[in-house]
Amino acid sequence: MTELRDDGFLNGRLRVLQPARGYRSGADAVMLAAACAARPGQSVLELGCGAGVASLCLAARVPGLVLTGLELQDSYANLARQNAARNGLSMTVLTGDLSSPPADLRAASFDHVISNPPYFMAGTQGPAADRTIARQERLPLHGWIDAALRRLKPAGGLTLIQRADRLDQLIAALLGRAGAITVLPIAARAGREAGRVLVTARKGARAPLRLLAPFIMHDAPCHTRDGEDFSAAARAVLRDGADLTRLFAKVS
Amino acid sequence: MTELRDDGFLNGRLRVLQPARGYRSGADAVMLAAACAARPGQSVLELGCGAGVASLCLAARVPGLVLTGLELQDSYANLARQNAARNGLSMTVLTGDLSSPPADLRAASFDHVISNPPYFMAGTQGPAADRTIARQERLPLHGWIDAALRRLKPAGGLTLIQRADRLDQLIAALLGRAGAITVLPIAARAGREAGRVLVTARKGARAPLRLLAPFIMHDAPCHTRDGEDFSAAARAVLRDGADLTRLFAKVS
Repeated sequence: MTELRDDGFLNGRLRVLQPARGYRSGADAVMLAAACAARPGQSVLELGCGAGVASLCLAARVPGLVLTGLELQDSYANLARQNAARNGLSMTVLTGDLSSPPADLRAASFDHVISNPPYFMAGTQGPAADRTIARQERLPLHGWIDAALRRLKPAGGLTLIQRADRLDQLIAALLGRAGAITVLPIAARAGREAGRVLVTARKGARAPLRLLAPFIMHDAPCHTRDGEDFSAAARAVLRDGADLTRLFAKVS
Repeated sequence: MTELRDDGFLNGRLRVLQPARGYRSGADAVMLAAACAARPGQSVLELGCGAGVASLCLAARVPGLVLTGLELQDSYANLARQNAARNGLSMTVLTGDLSSPPADLRAASFDHVISNPPYFMAGTQGPAADRTIARQERLPLHGWIDAALRRLKPAGGLTLIQRADRLDQLIAALLGRAGAITVLPIAARAGREAGRVLVTARKGARAPLRLLAPFIMHDAPCHTRDGEDFSAAARAVLRDGADLTRLFAKVS
């Protein structure tokens, strides 16, 4: 990992060092953090935390969290530690493989687990230039879900962001082990199919699935300029660190 | 089955006898028919055809289909036969249980299977007054999917409408056996969570899942009068028999 860039998140409230090339967290990590219903004082584990963007965005919104990140790659784990420190946030970052987690982690359980699992299976999809470890799966998606459920306390909350076309795999991995599965489709524009899904679920719960109205990232009917045409809702999350958890809360 | 009512569908182009009380097909059956991509001359099986509304709506849109319905209850099967005849449409209606279908059916395979499986498990949910056989499940949802997949030709098309909160069960039953799963959320109003899902899939296909933008049934932000505030898109389907298959077709 050679060249680093100092990226601003949440309108610059968070400064995050990331490699200039290779896997870089962006809007998906911020959306993931916005959907986690952690309350002050609770424990949160991020599986595959990369440079720590999602966990640090969550810490910026919810004070007093006990944050732990697990990251396979040493270079990213070091960045995450550095990024926590330079933003004055507290986060324990463990280097290790989620299919055989460090003993410290195996002994622990958490109120919440958040994760943005890799979007491509190793060697199957994605442009060649993106084939870094961070975007590829060594472990299939259900392995990520298994690891997350094992680390959750009973009734603990799981929050995931993933490509929409893998919703079937997500659901299959959750079925019978987590309930209250709530799916927020994320679409680039109104009327388009979802590109991502934000999924929350509760370990051991029995409540039925809910399929929410989509979250629309951009207002304009077609792409104009990067970052110039975010919807008001997307701006609220990406720039102001707004909370998406009310979308997931059951309205009766 | 005592009192019958003569209901109009597709702006009265279809006249359908249904019991005045008990299970009655409505908008869901019309939406189901609108989403089936059957082409003239193809064979279509409807599992649990009731009084035949979905199959007959499909026949009203696509000429020259070879339609078969399977219905558990004799009284509904007789109505379906009568309804086909009085609308000048051809449909073979078999009385039987989909978990042990009649020999005629077991020997056949179809280009398309459509179904609106019961919305409640027997004895679990739903208002007591609705607890007729037609709305309840004797067979769990995966039994309906199993039966449908068994009756489909290779690469045959499955079209289902179901409560949105059972999308997890639908997907789990399809996974690994059908692909190109395409989910159209149906919401009463814009911004509301989905109440129903229309799901299409292709037997044995490998194409990834797609989660489409929701179909909105009503324009007004809240309920005004029954049938008075359908969205233009819903009116096009329910009154004009419009085709929804273009929504499911992959745009490249």
